[in-house]
Amino acid sequence: MTYRAALNDIRFALNAIVGAGRLAETERYADATPELVDQIVEEAGRFTTEVLAPLNTVGDRQGSHLKDGKVVTPDGWADAYRQFWEGGWNGVAAPAAHGGMGLPILLQMAVSEMMTSANMAFGLCPLLTQGAIHALEAHGTDEQKERYLGKLVTGEWTGTMNLTEPQAGSDVGALTTKAEPAGDGTYKITGTKIYITYGDHEMAENIIHLVLARLPDAPLGTRGISLFLVPKYLLNEDGTPGTRNALRPLSLEKKLGIHASPTCVMSYEGATGFLVGEENQGMKAMFTMMNDARLGVGTQGVGIMERAFQQALAYAQERKQGKPVGKQHAQKEMVPIIEHADVRRTLLHMKALTMAARGLCYDTALHADLSMAAATEEERAAAKARVELLTPVAKSWSTDKGVEVASLGIQVHGGMGFIEETGAAQHLRDARIAPIYEGTNGIQALDLVARKLPMQMGGVVRAYLEEVVETADALRATNAPHLVTIADRLKTATEQLGRATMWIGQKLASGEIEDALAGATPYQSAFGTVAGGFYLAKGVLAAHKAGDESPTAQTALQLARFYAEQELPHTEGYCAAAMSGADLVGVTAEQLAS
Amino acid sequence: MTYRAALNDIRFALNAIVGAGRLAETERYADATPELVDQIVEEAGRFTTEVLAPLNTVGDRQGSHLKDGKVVTPDGWADAYRQFWEGGWNGVAAPAAHGGMGLPILLQMAVSEMMTSANMAFGLCPLLTQGAIHALEAHGTDEQKERYLGKLVTGEWTGTMNLTEPQAGSDVGALTTKAEPAGDGTYKITGTKIYITYGDHEMAENIIHLVLARLPDAPLGTRGISLFLVPKYLLNEDGTPGTRNALRPLSLEKKLGIHASPTCVMSYEGATGFLVGEENQGMKAMFTMMNDARLGVGTQGVGIMERAFQQALAYAQERKQGKPVGKQHAQKEMVPIIEHADVRRTLLHMKALTMAARGLCYDTALHADLSMAAATEEERAAAKARVELLTPVAKSWSTDKGVEVASLGIQVHGGMGFIEETGAAQHLRDARIAPIYEGTNGIQALDLVARKLPMQMGGVVRAYLEEVVETADALRATNAPHLVTIADRLKTATEQLGRATMWIGQKLASGEIEDALAGATPYQSAFGTVAGGFYLAKGVLAAHKAGDESPTAQTALQLARFYAEQELPHTEGYCAAAMSGADLVGVTAEQLAS
Repeated sequence: MTYRAALNDIRFALNAIVGAGRLAETERYADATPELVDQIVEEAGRFTTEVLAPLNTVGDRQGSHLKDGKVVTPDGWADAYRQFWEGGWNGVAAPAAHGGMGLPILLQMAVSEMMTSANMAFGLCPLLTQGAIHALEAHGTDEQKERYLGKLVTGEWTGTMNLTEPQAGSDVGALTTKAEPAGDGTYKITGTKIYITYGDHEMAENIIHLVLARLPDAPLGTRGISLFLVPKYLLNEDGTPGTRNALRPLSLEKKLGIHASPTCVMSYEGATGFLVGEENQGMKAMFTMMNDARLGVGTQGVGIMERAFQQALAYAQERKQGKPVGKQHAQKEMVPIIEHADVRRTLLHMKALTMAARGLCYDTALHADLSMAAATEEERAAAKARVELLTPVAKSWSTDKGVEVASLGIQVHGGMGFIEETGAAQHLRDARIAPIYEGTNGIQALDLVARKLPMQMGGVVRAYLEEVVETADALRATNAPHLVTIADRLKTATEQLGRATMWIGQKLASGEIEDALAGATPYQSAFGTVAGGFYLAKGVLAAHKAGDESPTAQTALQLARFYAEQELPHTEGYCAAAMSGADLVGVTAEQLAS
Repeated sequence: MTYRAALNDIRFALNAIVGAGRLAETERYADATPELVDQIVEEAGRFTTEVLAPLNTVGDRQGSHLKDGKVVTPDGWADAYRQFWEGGWNGVAAPAAHGGMGLPILLQMAVSEMMTSANMAFGLCPLLTQGAIHALEAHGTDEQKERYLGKLVTGEWTGTMNLTEPQAGSDVGALTTKAEPAGDGTYKITGTKIYITYGDHEMAENIIHLVLARLPDAPLGTRGISLFLVPKYLLNEDGTPGTRNALRPLSLEKKLGIHASPTCVMSYEGATGFLVGEENQGMKAMFTMMNDARLGVGTQGVGIMERAFQQALAYAQERKQGKPVGKQHAQKEMVPIIEHADVRRTLLHMKALTMAARGLCYDTALHADLSMAAATEEERAAAKARVELLTPVAKSWSTDKGVEVASLGIQVHGGMGFIEETGAAQHLRDARIAPIYEGTNGIQALDLVARKLPMQMGGVVRAYLEEVVETADALRATNAPHLVTIADRLKTATEQLGRATMWIGQKLASGEIEDALAGATPYQSAFGTVAGGFYLAKGVLAAHKAGDESPTAQTALQLARFYAEQELPHTEGYCAAAMSGADLVGVTAEQLAS
C-alpha cells in the first residue's frame, strides 16, 4: 500500500525521453537547470510520499461530506493542504510576477504525476486551481490579476471550473446559467452547476469559482457564453475575504471513486460575478483552462498507473504460490508469483504502458513550454501546434491505459485484488473518472480527428509522424541488438497510422465527415499506441547514444522491447477499425434493442 | 436501470448460432423440443426480469452482513430465493432421477445468463449449488446421493465449494485443512477456508459444504487432497436437518462488487465430514465442480455485458446532447446521443462482444450436452474434448470482455456513469470478480496452452480451427454482400491464430515451456477473438440459409460485420505477442523496481 516516488523513471522520462535540458537553454527557463529540476523532483517525491500517500486510504474510506451546508474533507486533509501550499508546490510553473517559481510546465507535470500517484483525490484540487490561474493570467484584467492571482498562485485560495449543468455536459453550449448586469460593472449570476470538483471545502480561506453563464440576449450556443469570476467570499478593499457571496454547495455526488474529492452541485443565487475577458468570448477563456486541465488529466492517468504498478509489484514479490515450471513436484517451496512468466508479463505490460504515457504527457508539456520559450516565432508556433495535436491523445490514451493498468493491478492480486482492504481496487475506482472528465475520451477523439488533423492542411500531424519515422531510422542505424527490432516495429506501426491518417484526411476533404468520425475512437487508440512506442524508442536511443547502462536505462530498453512486440502490433487492428466508415455503425436504436 | 431478458438474442444464439435443435434428436434430450426450450426461456425471462432484477440495486447498497454469527442477506433476498427454487429454476439440467428436469446444460446456461443480467450477486448462489450437484452425482456414494442430492436439486438446500486457504489460492495443493478419521467412517474437519461464496445464509434450511482437506500422512501437493461433504446441519435419520455441525462463518469480505453475495471466511472446528470419492482423489472431484463452474462464470461475463449494454442503450436514447454533424448551428434542438456515430459505435461494440461471448459459452454448453447425449462413443469423446478445449477460453475471454463492456457502459453515460446512483458503475464493480474467481484468467491461459493445446497431439485444436475455416468458406460461397467480407476477415484471423498455435505447439514439443507460457495470455485473447468471430459468422450463415430476415437476424448481421471489421483485426496483434517468447519477460523484481 505504500508509494515511493519513481524518481529514476521520472528522471529518465525528463532527460532521455523528452530532453528537458533544452529548456534551460531558453531565456524564459534559464533558471531551470538540470540540477534545480532534479532537486525539485526529489523534494516533490519526498513530500508526496511522506505527506500525501498516507492519506490515500483514509480519503477513500471517509470521503468528503456535506455538513451544515459546508463540505468536510477527510481527517488530515486540511493539514496536508497547508503543507502543500506552504511548501510552494502550487506555484511551480506559475508566473514569477505573481509569486510563482516560473519554472516549466513540464516540471509541474512531473510534480502533478507524483501527487496523483500518492493521492489522486487530493491532487485534483490544485489541478483545478492551475486552470483558474491560467485563465486569469490570459484573460483577466490587471485589477483581477492584482486581486486574485497572487493567492491562487500560492494556493492559499483554490479555484474551480463551472461548466456543466444537468442539460449541458459535452454540449457546453446548452447551458442556461444567467448573468445579469447589476449596473455597477458587476453581474448577478444565477443557476445550478454540477460536477464541480472541490466546489466547496474549508482547506482554503477563499475559493475562486470561474463560471460560464449567459448574458441577457446572448446568441444561442457556445457563441453566447461569457466567463465570470465568482468568489466564495467577496474581497474587502484590502483584498482580504469579506462578505459571503450568494452561492452554496447543494449536495455532493456519491461516486465510484475519488471519494475524498467533493463533487458538488453548486447553486448560484444572484451571486456577484466579474466578467473575465470579453462578453460572449467565454468559450475561448474556458478552453485555456480546459486544455491545461486535459493534459493534467492525462498525467493523472500516468500517476494512477504508477501507483497501481508499484502495488502489484510489491504483491508479486511477497505473495508465494506455485512452483517454477518443470519443478512442480521436485521443489517443496512455493515461489513468489513474480517468478511465473505470466505475472512478469503483466507487470512489464503495466510498466511499459506507464512509461509510454509518461513520455507522451511530458512531451506535450515540454512543447507547451517551448510554445512560450522557444527562440523564434516559428519554433513557438510549431510547438503550439504540436501541443494542440497531442493534447487530446495525451488526455485520452493515458487515461484509457490508466483504467487498463489499474485493472491489471487487481488481476495480479488474484482474489485479494477484489477485497477493498488491499487497496488495489481503489486505484481502478479512482482511475475510472479520468476518461470521462474534462471532455470524455470520445469528445477528445472528435477533437483529434475533426479539429487537429486538418491543422495546416495536415502538416502538423505529418510533421509528427515524420519525426517518429526519423527516430525509428536512427534507432535502426545503431545496428544494436534489440534496437533494430524496436525500430522496425515502430516504423511498421507508423506507416499503418500514416495510412489511416491519410484516409481520414481524404474523407474530411471530400465532406464525408461521418465516415471520418465513425472511426475517431479507434484512430485515437492507434495514434496513442504509436506515440507511446515513439517515446519509449526515443528514450532507448538517447540512452544508447549517451552510453547510459544504468539499471534504469536497461529496464527502459526492456520496456521498449516489450512494447514494440506486444503493443505496437495492435496498431493495425485499430487502424482497420478507424477506416471502417459510417455505414458500419448505421444502426437505429430499434435495431440495437432487437 | 430496468432489465428485460433479451429473448430474441438468446433464441438466435440457441437456434441460429449453436443449433440447439440437434439436442432434441438425441435420446437423452428427446424432451427438449424447440417449443419446450422456448417456453422455458420465456418463463425464465419473466422470472428474472420481474423478481430478480428489481433486487439488484438494493443488494448492492445493503450488501450481506454478519450478525450474531449468522449471515443476513439484503431485504427481499430470502423471498426471491424461495420463489426461485419453488419455480423449479434450480433443477433445469439436474438429473430427473433426483428430481431435476433433466434438460440440457445449454438451457441451464441461458437461464443462468438471464439470472446474472438481472442480479449477478443473487445468481451466484445457485451456480455454486450446481457444482455441488455435479460433484456428488459423479463421485458420491449411493447413500450420499440418496440423502443430499434431492434437496440440492430442488434448491431447498444450497451448496458451496471450499478450496481456498490464505496460503493456497491458485496453488490448491498448498492447502492444510485437516481431515482426521473419527473411527465411525466419518472425519473431523479442521481448518480455515476463505472466499467461500454463500458460505452462510438463512435462505435455505441447510448448506452442503464440499471441502478439500488432507488426511493424516497424505502425500504433498495436489496428490494428497481429498473431498469431504460437510453439512451445516447434520441430518437426522429421516433426512431432515438436525444437529448444528462445528463450522461457522468467521467474517465477511468487504468487496469491490457483488456486495450482496456473502464471501465468507469459514472456520471448520472438528466438523463432521463424509468422504466423497476416494482418498487423495479430491482434485479430480473438485475439477468436476470447477469445470462446470468455469463455464458458469464465463456465462456471468455474458450476463453482465447484456445488462450493461441495455442500460447504456436506454441512456443513449434518453440523454440529449449536441447536434448532428454539419447542423451544429442550423438545428436548435439537441439530439439523443445515440445519433452520434461514436456512441453508436460504442453500443455496437458492446452488443457484438456480448453476442460473440454468448455464442462461445452456449457452444461450450452444447458440447457438454453432446458429450453425454451424442449417439456414438466417438461423437461423445469428440464433444468432451471440445468442451475441455473451450472451457478456459469461454471463462477467460467472456469475463475479460465483461469488464471491458461494463466499462464502456460507464463511458456511454459520461459523468453520470461515475455516479453510483445511476447503476452503471455497479456493473463494472460486479463484473470485475469474474476474471479472478474459479481460476484466474492467467490460470485459464496456462491451462489452455499447457494442457488443452497438446490434447491428441494438437488434434483437438486443429479440428476446431478447421471448423472455423469451413464456416468462413461456406460464408464466402454465398457471395452475398457483407458475408464475403466477414468470411475473409475470419479466415485471415484464423490463419494467424493457426500460426501462433503451431508456434506454441513446437515450443511445447521441444521442451521450451517458458516460451510457450510467456505468451499464454495474449494467445488466449487471440483464441477468444477468433472464436467470437466464428460464432457470429455461424449465426449469419444459418440465418442466410434459412432466409431469416427478421429484425434480430438483421441486427446479428450488423454485429458480425462490426466484429469482423473492428475486432478480428486485433487477432494479429495478440498473436504477435503470443509468439514473443520468454526472453522478452526475462526481468527481475529489482529491474522492474528500478
